[in-house]
Amino acid sequence: MPQHDPFSAAEVESRRRAAKPLLSREAIVEEALRQITSDGVMSLRKIAKALDTGPASLYAYVNDVGELQALVLDRVLEAVEVGRTEGTWRDRLERLLRSYTEVLMSSPAVALMAIRTTAVGPNALRIAENLLGLLAEAGADRANAAWAIDMLTMFVTAVAAEHAQGPDPGAPDGPIAQAINRAPADEYPRVHAARTEIMSGTGEERFAWSIDVLLRGILSRAGLSPH
Amino acid sequence: MPQHDPFSAAEVESRRRAAKPLLSREAIVEEALRQITSDGVMSLRKIAKALDTGPASLYAYVNDVGELQALVLDRVLEAVEVGRTEGTWRDRLERLLRSYTEVLMSSPAVALMAIRTTAVGPNALRIAENLLGLLAEAGADRANAAWAIDMLTMFVTAVAAEHAQGPDPGAPDGPIAQAINRAPADEYPRVHAARTEIMSGTGEERFAWSIDVLLRGILSRAGLSPH
Repeated sequence: MPQHDPFSAAEVESRRRAAKPLLSREAIVEEALRQITSDGVMSLRKIAKALDTGPASLYAYVNDVGELQALVLDRVLEAVEVGRTEGTWRDRLERLLRSYTEVLMSSPAVALMAIRTTAVGPNALRIAENLLGLLAEAGADRANAAWAIDMLTMFVTAVAAEHAQGPDPGAPDGPIAQAINRAPADEYPRVHAARTEIMSGTGEERFAWSIDVLLRGILSRAGLSPH
Repeated sequence: MPQHDPFSAAEVESRRRAAKPLLSREAIVEEALRQITSDGVMSLRKIAKALDTGPASLYAYVNDVGELQALVLDRVLEAVEVGRTEGTWRDRLERLLRSYTEVLMSSPAVALMAIRTTAVGPNALRIAENLLGLLAEAGADRANAAWAIDMLTMFVTAVAAEHAQGPDPGAPDGPIAQAINRAPADEYPRVHAARTEIMSGTGEERFAWSIDVLLRGILSRAGLSPH
């Protein structure tokens, strides 16, 4: 039996009389997003309470928490900027990935939810459509471009989730610096020798470097030379 | 003030008399790993109870849950296979990354914890040391190799966390297939045209493809041609 598809489910007509706010899938998703952004978690019980109904009523609109998370993630991805036309394909691709990362980073709980939720709603499709267009413009064949969109979205999601953990672990006094500086030269000679390079660069420089590595790899795999 | 470093903290001598099991940082980490593997979560209260002590006693050994997570993650990474000598650098690097991914995937809760926990213990250093050695063997300079280890470990962690969400979203009846098949050709022409390619390949084939993309990108960035 195919898994239920929340994005193709028909909208349910609310039976409420005018006194209560109208219940709808959209109202549930908005309240869920509000909760996860402000409290870090969402619960069907609290959503029902906020919408002045019982949890059982919500099941007419969403089947379970997993489905609701998919709807909330797609709602978040609405803010990702696609389709701007200035600049080369490379500029536009980088801008899209940067916007995707920033949108997910706007809330730590959203970033962590994104890593365990598959993005398959209309906004995820809109992003995939744009990525395919940009990779085609770069000269990539369809097979490599099709797999590349998965890898690019996984990358930006992982960057956002990693930043959701709180204070930057790469800070000069942070745990990474401590670990690297503590590493004895006789036991970890390469780590010791590369300690300056390991700690170098801003988050921005490393992000740009990573995107460059990914695009070079994708183009090379597609039989193209680096741009 | 530098952040506290749990890996360099001195071991505390337990004051318990022989009747109770000896309290130690190692015993706490083992119990925390047992809880997260079997229950999906760990709590200082439950760890204290299992070790027949009060939560306050644990603070002599670990400062907070974040520190405990870092210790548990490093304990998990002990199982990552490094240092085998058969095969080319490429074979050995791929084997290391595969082992890293499998170790994290052994428990969904561990995989999700890994994405928000910085790996900085002795086992993370051992893995970094080996990755630097393999990338040097490939011909990469130190600066690019130093940044590459971060990207490679982020990649395997993201793959593991993505698989922690339960049923494979890429299954033929799963949410991705539904979304792709639902996408109207007029609205998403490229997604529609690439629908077969987007759904093609096993997890294993996609993993190998992704590793190849990353290594090609890293080598290209380091001014080397693909192996």
